[in-house]
Amino acid sequence: MSTNSALTFKISHTSQDSAARTGCLFTPHGVIRTPVFMPVGTQATVKAVKPQELEELGAEILLSNTYHLMLRPGEEIVAQAGGLHRFMAWEHPILTDSGGFQVMSLAALRRISDEGVAFRSHLSGEALFLSPERAIEIENALGADIIMALDECPPYPCSPTEARTSAERTLRWAQRSLRAHQRRADQALFGITQGSIYPEVRRFSAQETAALPFDGYAIGGLSVGEPKACFGPLLDETLPWLPGDKPRYVMGVGTPDLILEGVLRGVDMFDCVYPTRIARNGSAMSRYGRLNLRNARWEREFGPMDPECDCFVCRTFSAAYLHHLVVCKEILGAELLSYHNLYFLTHFMAELRKAIEADRLLLFAQAFLETYHQGLS
Amino acid sequence: MSTNSALTFKISHTSQDSAARTGCLFTPHGVIRTPVFMPVGTQATVKAVKPQELEELGAEILLSNTYHLMLRPGEEIVAQAGGLHRFMAWEHPILTDSGGFQVMSLAALRRISDEGVAFRSHLSGEALFLSPERAIEIENALGADIIMALDECPPYPCSPTEARTSAERTLRWAQRSLRAHQRRADQALFGITQGSIYPEVRRFSAQETAALPFDGYAIGGLSVGEPKACFGPLLDETLPWLPGDKPRYVMGVGTPDLILEGVLRGVDMFDCVYPTRIARNGSAMSRYGRLNLRNARWEREFGPMDPECDCFVCRTFSAAYLHHLVVCKEILGAELLSYHNLYFLTHFMAELRKAIEADRLLLFAQAFLETYHQGLS
Repeated sequence: MSTNSALTFKISHTSQDSAARTGCLFTPHGVIRTPVFMPVGTQATVKAVKPQELEELGAEILLSNTYHLMLRPGEEIVAQAGGLHRFMAWEHPILTDSGGFQVMSLAALRRISDEGVAFRSHLSGEALFLSPERAIEIENALGADIIMALDECPPYPCSPTEARTSAERTLRWAQRSLRAHQRRADQALFGITQGSIYPEVRRFSAQETAALPFDGYAIGGLSVGEPKACFGPLLDETLPWLPGDKPRYVMGVGTPDLILEGVLRGVDMFDCVYPTRIARNGSAMSRYGRLNLRNARWEREFGPMDPECDCFVCRTFSAAYLHHLVVCKEILGAELLSYHNLYFLTHFMAELRKAIEADRLLLFAQAFLETYHQGLS
Repeated sequence: MSTNSALTFKISHTSQDSAARTGCLFTPHGVIRTPVFMPVGTQATVKAVKPQELEELGAEILLSNTYHLMLRPGEEIVAQAGGLHRFMAWEHPILTDSGGFQVMSLAALRRISDEGVAFRSHLSGEALFLSPERAIEIENALGADIIMALDECPPYPCSPTEARTSAERTLRWAQRSLRAHQRRADQALFGITQGSIYPEVRRFSAQETAALPFDGYAIGGLSVGEPKACFGPLLDETLPWLPGDKPRYVMGVGTPDLILEGVLRGVDMFDCVYPTRIARNGSAMSRYGRLNLRNARWEREFGPMDPECDCFVCRTFSAAYLHHLVVCKEILGAELLSYHNLYFLTHFMAELRKAIEADRLLLFAQAFLETYHQGLS
């Protein structure tokens, strides 16, 4: 058990058949059962889903993006509104990322130095600067329960030297983030490990970051375009070096197959825009993989889209109706599929927790992946 | 009291200070209190609002568009799904329009003859034909509680001769619609009066349509671009000729000021895309007129957008948050404003009914319009 005033992590059960574990994260805004998937509310809203619906479908923590919120509405307005929880009307736990990933993927004209990142807003072109200290200052103002240290997330592909340089910089930034943090009493601070696809850099980054007194440890820079087959092996270079009694978080991963790979190795937290993004593209998550509701096969399917799902969407609407909404580009289609997808993933995580507690996660994973990769016949 | 197997209209109270009246429409899917505003679900969905939310905010009947549904998904699929109620998961009353208005405003390459309208789909370019008989056939297949006869809605402006010609054609189509109707037992059929801005044509159309055995009578071709000042006077040329014991419906009107003008003259039903369309543009309806949430005045307004509104949106979210969502073009902004606007209008109608029952509608209207036109200071 790891505990401080802002965050207590209590492991409930460690699997006998893998490194998977279940646990509880106690935060100022409530308890999170792990392993957990965190829906992403980029601009202080999970796209097309109301906070009351997120509660209803079982979400226990949301992620929001420091980069987006610093641009709009600005952290000052969020702070004046009483903090991010009050601003977005979500009184349960929130995690904010540091902006490192978005600066690399969205912002224009980046110039990275040890001091920080100078960049231009992808919206207004305004010249801005993000340093480890500034990121923490913004996150302190936003007031999430868990905040992330600024990292440098190298693009894929990058050379071993670039990977090493950015991992070293991320480490120096980690130390500065720890010093800058002003709300230790009610905000936990996580460090981020990097290293691209290079095992030795991953290991170095994990070992050095683990030596710093963070409340939790994240694995960044995965799911950025590298081959899927790298995922497990790279986790194997990282996870063993992270403290077992602290939460471990793989950033930007939200498909059931990769989540399973992470959970089997002892990962506790995940986040991704995947469920809501594919929903807006007309796709549903299911045990049989991704279902494209735009497909004509659904035109006269008057039963539920996913007969095994008991979410309010599958209980209320036919697949034919969802197909119609998607074809007509109706907002309600995005709403209903986003709801279903987050419900699916939230309940998938609950199933994983049950399987871990029963020491049968390996069997569960095997059966699940067979159906999942086979698809709908 | 007017009654047949598909629709019973019972007038509860006729105002002493105006022609306004309250009543109840009994349909196969439930009772509607009049005067009523009907939210528009163009493509079998009220844009950005779930059917459960429409129930919650007090909607008692929805309107859906025959023209759009004949194109997508096609009435046959809706019928196979068990009818429009089941298809869109709305087990309360529905009214379908006839497609006349949409054919004129959306379809390409129209050729109107007495037989019907040949046109091309605005989506696929496909050549299609809508006759009074075909419109009824589609509406019979969709299965709404109230269906409308096909009308010819002349554009504004049009000459007196054009207005007369199209009113006469609409009358002939009305007779054919009555003959074509196959579900008298569970679908009420309304006729539509036309006449553009010409008093004598309006009167002619009203008198002749009233002579036909419809279950209710609609006033079409208003709110199509003519000066707002024409609205009341044109109603005055129409309403006196329509049977007092049957429901009267002004099509395409949804702003509180025009609704008041109609209700004061004895109109029972209204529909309009206004509340949901302006919501998607970032505007809210209020006692103080239309509020543009995009405006910077809301940036730091941490109280509710409309302090007098007790809808779930105004009870839960600040104006600053709604402003943020609108500025960021977030779907949730459209969802929340659509909900609020429909709640506002639904509760406005309830207030009107109360004022009518208390014989104080004129006073209510005067006070309401003063605030409404004055706007927010």
